[in-house]
Amino acid sequence: MSAFKIVILPGDGIGPEVAAAGRLALETIGDVFGHNFTFEEKLIGGIAIDTVDDPYPADTDAACLAADAVLLGAVGGPKWDLKPKRPEQGLLAVRKSMGLFANLRPMDVAPSQAFRSPLKEEIVSGADMLIVRELTGGLYFGKRTRTETTATDECLYTVAEVERVAHVAFQAARKRRNKVTSVDKANVIETSRLWRETVNKLHAAEYSDVELEHALVDSMAMHLVTRPKDFDVILTENMFGDILSDLASVLPGSIGLLGSASLGSTGKGLYEPIHGSAPDIAGKDLANPIGTLKSVSMMLRHSLNLTKEADTLDAAIEAVIKAGTLTRDLGGTTSGSQVAKAVSDQIRIQA
Amino acid sequence: MSAFKIVILPGDGIGPEVAAAGRLALETIGDVFGHNFTFEEKLIGGIAIDTVDDPYPADTDAACLAADAVLLGAVGGPKWDLKPKRPEQGLLAVRKSMGLFANLRPMDVAPSQAFRSPLKEEIVSGADMLIVRELTGGLYFGKRTRTETTATDECLYTVAEVERVAHVAFQAARKRRNKVTSVDKANVIETSRLWRETVNKLHAAEYSDVELEHALVDSMAMHLVTRPKDFDVILTENMFGDILSDLASVLPGSIGLLGSASLGSTGKGLYEPIHGSAPDIAGKDLANPIGTLKSVSMMLRHSLNLTKEADTLDAAIEAVIKAGTLTRDLGGTTSGSQVAKAVSDQIRIQA
Ligand SMILES: CC(C)[C@H](C(=O)O)[C@@H](O)C(=O)O
Ligand SMILES: CC(C)[C@H](C(=O)O)[C@@H](O)C(=O)O
Repeated sequence: MSAFKIVILPGDGIGPEVAAAGRLALETIGDVFGHNFTFEEKLIGGIAIDTVDDPYPADTDAACLAADAVLLGAVGGPKWDLKPKRPEQGLLAVRKSMGLFANLRPMDVAPSQAFRSPLKEEIVSGADMLIVRELTGGLYFGKRTRTETTATDECLYTVAEVERVAHVAFQAARKRRNKVTSVDKANVIETSRLWRETVNKLHAAEYSDVELEHALVDSMAMHLVTRPKDFDVILTENMFGDILSDLASVLPGSIGLLGSASLGSTGKGLYEPIHGSAPDIAGKDLANPIGTLKSVSMMLRHSLNLTKEADTLDAAIEAVIKAGTLTRDLGGTTSGSQVAKAVSDQIRIQA
Repeated sequence: MSAFKIVILPGDGIGPEVAAAGRLALETIGDVFGHNFTFEEKLIGGIAIDTVDDPYPADTDAACLAADAVLLGAVGGPKWDLKPKRPEQGLLAVRKSMGLFANLRPMDVAPSQAFRSPLKEEIVSGADMLIVRELTGGLYFGKRTRTETTATDECLYTVAEVERVAHVAFQAARKRRNKVTSVDKANVIETSRLWRETVNKLHAAEYSDVELEHALVDSMAMHLVTRPKDFDVILTENMFGDILSDLASVLPGSIGLLGSASLGSTGKGLYEPIHGSAPDIAGKDLANPIGTLKSVSMMLRHSLNLTKEADTLDAAIEAVIKAGTLTRDLGGTTSGSQVAKAVSDQIRIQA
């Protein structure tokens, strides 16, 4: 029996509902497989601003740094739009403090689900990619200046920053279809030229068994829509990754299905569904918990090293979808908490 | 009878073929409507590097600055990929020198053509948008630094730079469906906050009759794929515009159909199809000239003030497509030069 400290950051909007679904899955897995998960719930985002006037309280930070893994619901909402302190600052702060430099966003469209996609089925059916986005560099964390008439943001990358996230991409590719597409704008910006050179050197030195190609970010946006099946691992910097991973996330037809992992060098990580806080449906038990459950499966795999447990959770999610136990976004009528309960029941059956 | 000085920059790959199609259309229009177009062909891009070791020779610059309008084919190709001088530098240089701060990229999907789209027909049929991209600021023209281990790019915007391109967007919206969606990343970067504030102020002061909404760039990438019909004019900064306009350009199913205009404050402009140099099909008379012909129609409208002539050219293009006189990319078997000839014949019929 192993013991794991999990910090839960429910956040705003539908965040608490989906986080509760994630917690239930972990509890069931603990029960079935004999692990001892302890949970601590902490404030982040808008609710943290409202409660303690800080989107990322010191108390939350300390808990995250001491945890084996962190599960986040969602942050943000129009309520805080015009305020000087913004919920997203909490998200950026936890990424930086925990050193979460690699954001993993898997996206796949099973042939049986391709009918949901905004793309024509024959283009998207069977697509299966992993976007690896650099998460603590670039324009997101660069120096900024502002006067009445001018604003600047600095985009900075070091070789070491590019290398550590490129390692993650190449290693992930080896466990998948062995191909990395590195995305940059090397025909215009200097950080992209550093990016491309560094990826090329690392590839030659340590990963020449992995197929590597480069794409410009504008072309890549086109490719994701016209030939998504051609990609395996997509590696890119922070801002391009923000845009491309959101673009890729609509291909399955519901953003409620996708999870994400943000990893540092220690194996600890932060896990969150890729959808936002969806204030319009908050509190109505309508939110699809599957994105969060997929994130929990990534947590089991990447931070807790519980592969069998992750496989069981994935199989349970699969079975619940197959059985047609679906929330409204997928055309069903089941509530979010009932879907979470169904997955929990399936964990016991599949284990 | 009016006289117009047109500079043609054929460039690389299929550039010369499509530029020739554009020239033929202008000649026919001159003939039919009694205008005197004079043409000067100049070097830019890869061919300019090969010929005079400079992607934007002084001679080309002087001709562009003296012209009423410039028609560009395409620049670039793998041949120059590893060279220190790159063809794209020619494109960036002409934009900067002519002060072309507003890039106009119209995209529409006629219901009869929606079957070509990678998107499901019901999502995309009838979509009709104009992307207005800021073209001489931001990361494209910021200060860069480079050491062995670090690279930086600066993104800078001034209020004046945002205002002048926002004017273009608001004024274009008034001639369309009266809505502007301004795209930024105001939840993270400072230039985007300046962007949003400036657009809001200008809207309140001069354009409150136009509907204005804001979208984050990551969300906008999703919206373009899930609900493209909801947008009219999309206004954004240089790098985001590069990505989003290429993304939008694949929605009609062939990038060979779209033209673009790059405008400065004087009414002069540079016109080019949105496709690249396509070296794989260069010299085979396979390239679709319609993107260039659409660019010529924009030139007639925006720089030469020849509205009737532009309408005639648009109608001629429409008639040729309807008649099924199509290049390979559209499922036809007609050569590029035959399509150009067919459009020229139609100009005489429609006029
Ligand atoms: C909320 C925002 C700061 C964040 C980002 O841009 O990184 C979000 O869009 C994401 O992708 O996680
Ligand atoms: C060739 C390149 C420099 C250019 C750009 O990024 O602006 C192109 O992609 C475009 O959009 O016209």
